[in-house]
Amino acid sequence: MKRLEKVKGTRDLLPEEMAKRRWVFERIRDVFERYDFHEVLTPTFEYTRLFQLRSGEEVVEQLYAFEDKGGRNLSLRPDMTSSVARLYVNQFQNAPKPIKWYYMANMFRYEEPQSGRYREFWQAGVELLGSDRIEADAEVIALFVESYLATGLKDFTVNIGDRVLLDEFAKMLGVEDDIGLMRLIDKKDKLSKEDFIGALKEFGLDDEGVKKVLSLIEIKGLPEEVLPKAEELFTGEEAKAEIKRLYELVDLLRAYGVSDWIRIDLGIARGFDYYTSIVFEAIAPNDLGIGSIGGGGRYDNLIEVFGGKPTPATGFAIGIERLIPILEWKGLVPGPKLRPEVYAIPIGKDAEVRKAAIEIVSELRRAGVKADYELTGRKIGKALDYAGRLGVPFVVLVGKRDLAEGRVTVRDMETGEQRAVEKEKAVEEILALLGL
Amino acid sequence: MKRLEKVKGTRDLLPEEMAKRRWVFERIRDVFERYDFHEVLTPTFEYTRLFQLRSGEEVVEQLYAFEDKGGRNLSLRPDMTSSVARLYVNQFQNAPKPIKWYYMANMFRYEEPQSGRYREFWQAGVELLGSDRIEADAEVIALFVESYLATGLKDFTVNIGDRVLLDEFAKMLGVEDDIGLMRLIDKKDKLSKEDFIGALKEFGLDDEGVKKVLSLIEIKGLPEEVLPKAEELFTGEEAKAEIKRLYELVDLLRAYGVSDWIRIDLGIARGFDYYTSIVFEAIAPNDLGIGSIGGGGRYDNLIEVFGGKPTPATGFAIGIERLIPILEWKGLVPGPKLRPEVYAIPIGKDAEVRKAAIEIVSELRRAGVKADYELTGRKIGKALDYAGRLGVPFVVLVGKRDLAEGRVTVRDMETGEQRAVEKEKAVEEILALLGL
Repeated sequence: MKRLEKVKGTRDLLPEEMAKRRWVFERIRDVFERYDFHEVLTPTFEYTRLFQLRSGEEVVEQLYAFEDKGGRNLSLRPDMTSSVARLYVNQFQNAPKPIKWYYMANMFRYEEPQSGRYREFWQAGVELLGSDRIEADAEVIALFVESYLATGLKDFTVNIGDRVLLDEFAKMLGVEDDIGLMRLIDKKDKLSKEDFIGALKEFGLDDEGVKKVLSLIEIKGLPEEVLPKAEELFTGEEAKAEIKRLYELVDLLRAYGVSDWIRIDLGIARGFDYYTSIVFEAIAPNDLGIGSIGGGGRYDNLIEVFGGKPTPATGFAIGIERLIPILEWKGLVPGPKLRPEVYAIPIGKDAEVRKAAIEIVSELRRAGVKADYELTGRKIGKALDYAGRLGVPFVVLVGKRDLAEGRVTVRDMETGEQRAVEKEKAVEEILALLGL
Repeated sequence: MKRLEKVKGTRDLLPEEMAKRRWVFERIRDVFERYDFHEVLTPTFEYTRLFQLRSGEEVVEQLYAFEDKGGRNLSLRPDMTSSVARLYVNQFQNAPKPIKWYYMANMFRYEEPQSGRYREFWQAGVELLGSDRIEADAEVIALFVESYLATGLKDFTVNIGDRVLLDEFAKMLGVEDDIGLMRLIDKKDKLSKEDFIGALKEFGLDDEGVKKVLSLIEIKGLPEEVLPKAEELFTGEEAKAEIKRLYELVDLLRAYGVSDWIRIDLGIARGFDYYTSIVFEAIAPNDLGIGSIGGGGRYDNLIEVFGGKPTPATGFAIGIERLIPILEWKGLVPGPKLRPEVYAIPIGKDAEVRKAAIEIVSELRRAGVKADYELTGRKIGKALDYAGRLGVPFVVLVGKRDLAEGRVTVRDMETGEQRAVEKEKAVEEILALLGL
C-alpha cells in the first residue's frame, strides 16, 4: 500500500525537539507564574465568526476554517486572544479585576507552507483584562522582557509603538485612510528608502507629508533620545498626552529593572488587528531571517466588539517556533538527556534472571533514576553495543551463575571497568556511583 | 450584538482546573520519564484515511472529519496511536529498537455531547515499538499501574484480557463472526444475565455455547485463582501457549512490584480496534458513573497495515477527563495556590510610590516569589479588601510619607499586624516571613 504521510505544512515533534520545547516552556511558565498570571485553555476550535469579528485581514484570509459534520462553520484557533476575550465575556465580566491569564498552546493557519512557517505552531502568551492604567501595560511589557531573559536570551530589544500616535499622525497629515497609511508604514523595513517614498507619494502624500512620515519612522531608539523628537513632531493635545504616557511607561519599566531592553519605534503598527494604543514587539538579531519573536499591545475595544461591557485589556504572545531556533543558534538550549542512567541486561532466557533485572531497574526508578532494561531479547554483545550507542553510563549485567551466588555485575561504560556486587546492594551502589 | 459562545461539547479550562491538570500530568510525566519513554507530538490533524484504516467502527463514526480549503479530507486526531504508527513508518523503521515514546495531548471526537464526554479531551499515553516479547507487555503494564499510583490513586485494578484467547474461544465455539461475538462479550457488564444469555442465543449459540461463554466471563479475578480455570476451559495448543504467556506476564509484573493491582478478565476485548493479543484496562471504583480510566494492549499488525515492515508494538492511553474526577472525588489533587504570596499597594498616585512598589515586587519575583501589585488604581481600602478576598498572606503598603523616610509597611493579613520596615530591607524581611 501507499505510505501514509502527514499533512503538508504540519510537523512531527521528535523527542529531542520536545525536550527542548519543554525546557523553554517551563522557563517561561515559571516567570508567568511569579508574575501571578494563571493558566487557561480554550477549545482548539471555535465558531469562525469569533475570529472574523476583529482580526486583521491576513488572519481572516489564513483561517483554518471548515464546516463540521453538523454544518457548523468552525476554525482552528489562529491565536488565543479572541478565545480568551470570548471566555471573559461568557463567564468573567463580574469577576474581581484585573484578570491575569496565560496560555501555552497551539495555533493554526492555512497558508502555503514555507520555510519556518507551519500550519500548526505554538505560542506562550498572557492577557491582562480590566485595567486601563499604564501600570498594566508596564506589567505586561516587563513580563514580556523577563520571559525572554528566562530562556537565557539577552541580545534582544522590545520595541514599543503607539496606535494612538499613528492615528493622530494620520489626522495631522489629513489622511482619511489611516489603515492604509499604517499598512504602508508597517512595510517600511521591507522596502528601500526610494521605494518607500514612491509608495507614500502614490498613496497621495505631498512632499511635506512624505517628510513627516520619514521623521516619524526615525523616532526609533532609546526612549530618552527619541521621545523628545516625538514631542517635536506631534502638536495635538491627544498626542501630547499619549507621549506623556509613554514617558510614564518607560519610567515604570525602569523600576521593573527591564529598561535596558526597551526601545521606542513609532513606526510599529503590529498588523491591523485589535490593538488600540501601545503596541510592542521583540526583535533578536539573528542570521536566520527571523523577524519578530513575539509581540502584543493594548486592545481596549475587543471585549465590547464581542458583546461584553467595555473592558480595557493588554497582552502579548511569544512565537515559540521563532524563539527556539534563535535560542538554539545561540546555543542557549541545553541538550536534553534522552538516555537512561542505568541499563540492565539479563543474560540468557531464564525467568529468574529477567526478574532480577526488573527488580533492580524498578527499585532504581522508584529512587527517581531514569533506568531501563533489555526488552527485545538481544544477546549480551548486541545489548552492550546498544547501551554504548545510547551513551548509558552504567550497565547492570544479570547472569544465571552470578545470581545463584547472589551477585550481579555493574559495568562502568566509560572505563569498561566491571565489578561484581551483591544483588541486594546493587541499587545502593549504583545510586552512589550516580552521586545520589 | 449576540453573545459569542463556545462550540457545543467543548470546554474552557479555567485556572484552577488547569493547575490541577498540570499537577496530574507532571506526576505521570515523571514516571514516564523514569521508565525511559520520550515525548513526541504529532500534528493535531491528519488525513482521515489514516484513522479509518485500522480504527474500530465507533472511532470512525465519531471522527471529527472535515474538508479543508485545499479539498483535503482531514480529521482531528481521535487518538495518538495511529499518528505515532504513521510517524514510525515515515521515519523510524531503521532506528534501534525498541522505541519508547510517550505523549500528553488532546484528542477529538464528533458525537452528541453528554455528561462527562467532550468533543476535545486529553490523554497521556505511551507506545513501545519493536519488541514482541512479554517483557515489553510487562514494561508497559507496570508503567500503566505506576502512572496511576503516581497520582496518589491506590484503589484501582488493571484488568488484563487477551484477544488471542477470545479468537481461540470463537473457534472453539465454531463461531465465524468472531468480531460479533467479541462485541457481545464486551457488552456483558451493560446487560442483565438474562438479557446477556438471550443475546447470546439470538447470536446463534446453543446451550453448550452459552455455558462456555458464561464460563469465559467468569475467568475474572486474581491471576493465581483464575488462570487455572482458563487452562481448563481452553483445549487448543495456541490457547495453552497464550495462557503460558499470561503466567509469565504476571510473574514479571510481580518483579515490578505492581502485582497487587493486576487482575485477569478474559471478557475484555477493548473495542474492535487494532489490538492483537494482550489488552488491559484500568478500573477505579467510584460513585461517578465512570468506567475505564485508561487502557491499552498489544497491536502487532498496525505498522504493517500502515505500509511499514511488520513491527510488534504495545501501548496504553490514560483518559485524563476520567481520571481527574476520580482523583478529585477522592481528594487526591491538592488545591492549587492561585493567589500571590505578597501583594503591594501603592497609596496615592505619586510616581515614586508606584515605582517603589514595583521595585519591591520585582525583587521578590526575582527571588522566586509569586508577587503582585495593585494594577487598577483602587484606593487602599478596596485594595486591602481585594487582597483579603484573594487570601494573600502579606501586603506591602507603600505610602508617600513613609517612603520619604525610607520606609514601607508590611501587613500580615492573617493577624492584621502592621510593621514599618526600611524599604531597602523590605524584601529580605518578607522572604524571612515566608520562610525563604
